[in-house]
Amino acid sequence: MQTITVGLEKQPYSIYLGAGLLQNKTLFSEQIRGHQVMIVSNETVAKWYLPQLQATLNTHHCDNVLLPDGEQYKNITELTKIFDELASKKHTRKTTLLALGGGVIADMTGFAAACYMRGVNYLQVPTSLLAQVDASIGGKTAVNHPLGKNFIGAFYQPRGVIIDINTLATLPEREYREGFAEVIKYGLIHDKAFFDWIEAHIEGLLSRDPQALTYAIARSCQIKATLVAADEHEWLDIRALLNLGHSFGHAIEAGLGYGKWLHGEAVAIGMLLAADLSARLACLPTAEVARIKTLLIKIGLPVRLPAELSVAQMLDLMAGDKKNINSQLRLILLKAIGQACVAEDVMQNQLTQLLADYLDENTIC
Amino acid sequence: MQTITVGLEKQPYSIYLGAGLLQNKTLFSEQIRGHQVMIVSNETVAKWYLPQLQATLNTHHCDNVLLPDGEQYKNITELTKIFDELASKKHTRKTTLLALGGGVIADMTGFAAACYMRGVNYLQVPTSLLAQVDASIGGKTAVNHPLGKNFIGAFYQPRGVIIDINTLATLPEREYREGFAEVIKYGLIHDKAFFDWIEAHIEGLLSRDPQALTYAIARSCQIKATLVAADEHEWLDIRALLNLGHSFGHAIEAGLGYGKWLHGEAVAIGMLLAADLSARLACLPTAEVARIKTLLIKIGLPVRLPAELSVAQMLDLMAGDKKNINSQLRLILLKAIGQACVAEDVMQNQLTQLLADYLDENTIC
Repeated sequence: MQTITVGLEKQPYSIYLGAGLLQNKTLFSEQIRGHQVMIVSNETVAKWYLPQLQATLNTHHCDNVLLPDGEQYKNITELTKIFDELASKKHTRKTTLLALGGGVIADMTGFAAACYMRGVNYLQVPTSLLAQVDASIGGKTAVNHPLGKNFIGAFYQPRGVIIDINTLATLPEREYREGFAEVIKYGLIHDKAFFDWIEAHIEGLLSRDPQALTYAIARSCQIKATLVAADEHEWLDIRALLNLGHSFGHAIEAGLGYGKWLHGEAVAIGMLLAADLSARLACLPTAEVARIKTLLIKIGLPVRLPAELSVAQMLDLMAGDKKNINSQLRLILLKAIGQACVAEDVMQNQLTQLLADYLDENTIC
Repeated sequence: MQTITVGLEKQPYSIYLGAGLLQNKTLFSEQIRGHQVMIVSNETVAKWYLPQLQATLNTHHCDNVLLPDGEQYKNITELTKIFDELASKKHTRKTTLLALGGGVIADMTGFAAACYMRGVNYLQVPTSLLAQVDASIGGKTAVNHPLGKNFIGAFYQPRGVIIDINTLATLPEREYREGFAEVIKYGLIHDKAFFDWIEAHIEGLLSRDPQALTYAIARSCQIKATLVAADEHEWLDIRALLNLGHSFGHAIEAGLGYGKWLHGEAVAIGMLLAADLSARLACLPTAEVARIKTLLIKIGLPVRLPAELSVAQMLDLMAGDKKNINSQLRLILLKAIGQACVAEDVMQNQLTQLLADYLDENTIC
């Protein structure tokens, strides 16, 4: 088992990474303070892993609530079901919520924990690659609004993150591959050597080689932990770099309707757009854009915008993005592979042309 | 204008108290950082004060959302309307929410500010006595759950509180009188001299004498500010004392259906129950219980439980109270007028008898 620390000043916590951790009674017991536990999961994941986890937690009083599976259910209506279950089972302020699932479950459980009785303890137990490398770390919790992804949420840190890489064995191929969008992101914004390594090991990663996979997850978690610890609430421009590709990606997800494209798919084309825009602004060599595109294609991630969307729709949705300040669009761009920056002066006509170039009849996804 | 500081370590803020502050452009401008403002109010209050406030804020971009009036609307469904308005009008992270109304508007606006884009700025502009002395101060924000009052919320502090006592002129008599439950509470838990003063000045207070009223509000705000600054998140047993009467009160509000009894009415009988229980446990002289009861009767506040509720229902709702830890009931009791304590060892049979004694056919309210 590896341990990675998220070194927050006020409440540091650990990410535990290894095979078979779902069966580790000692580890779970250390992380749970009170007697009551509410496992939040979805119908798909619960079938595989809920009985295992219940067995591990058999000395606790364990309730559970199962939500439907998919980004389209990451909304206030489904969130309310968690509150209903907690209240009807008389869970107190000393309860522990436990998020067993992918990014949607991670975000919703964290937000429910932030709000129930104004804040209770929670643990992340991510079972998808995307949740393991991204959603479960850093305390960004939220649900979606029809007009904007993650518009309603809180910064609320978990007490710990327990990653059992064995859970990836049952992850459907499409959801496995989308996770690599976030893995690649860490290389792009912070660590050129890691990007090079991903390129070199992409075959092993796609065939789910445990050794390569463990390294990719651990390195991703380390980078995320570093950036989050440096800027927990995104007040500086450090944590914001983690949003590379996300302004585009969130607009795609909201525009198509949540759940049509997976989050990682939308982020993949978003990162390519950010890289291409960086090249057009003469920040990034064009050859690097091609390199990123090649890697995304190898993984089977989209490199064109969805044909159902228009440039006007994308611009409108991006105008409402959370990172914008006083109606000015803020984008994360690349100066090099391994180095990102925040840009506040992107010209509307450059953005329009960029979107138009990626939105034609030849759209593939 | 008086200024009272809520001396929080991380983010201290001020309560401004005076007549005619709604017209004070300088004061409002100092408190609002960005250009965008979203006024949240209810249909009743907006008729009286929205145009005044809009005129004061005429150099800002001002939107508004009006909710229906009443505790029965302090729920997630109505909260969502605030998010809808913010998102559709493209309010960014730099927006300021402004709560113009009573306790319901204060709690909902604060919670919306806590959640929208994971936290935006907000100001409290309370127009009811109860909101001026209690709800608008201290950053406890929430909506109700059918099974528990304020079950879903956040600790999230406003940037400032602006109390224009002129707004009390239009407050209906019943809502004016309920506010005194919280005023009396401050005397009971923290300041015997203030309780004595309220007793001595009750006629002037009930006739809305501006001088007496200003003192009562200022002293209440000072006491609340002191307790909140000492224990912002209720981790110690200091802030919890502000919940005197509230475990009973919340059970009444939830049990009857929110909005039947006003919050202050439910807290009034709750405080009397807490005082009587304190006397039964030989903590408080019986004569003090009679004194409290006499004052409540003078104000026209309830001194019996509502006949529609049963002892079993009250016990069940109280068992789910937020202050409980590991299924143990925690109540705020009185050692003397001016001195409260947290009790964790209340016997079920004593509580049952107490409730039964206040719940007979002679119920008045």
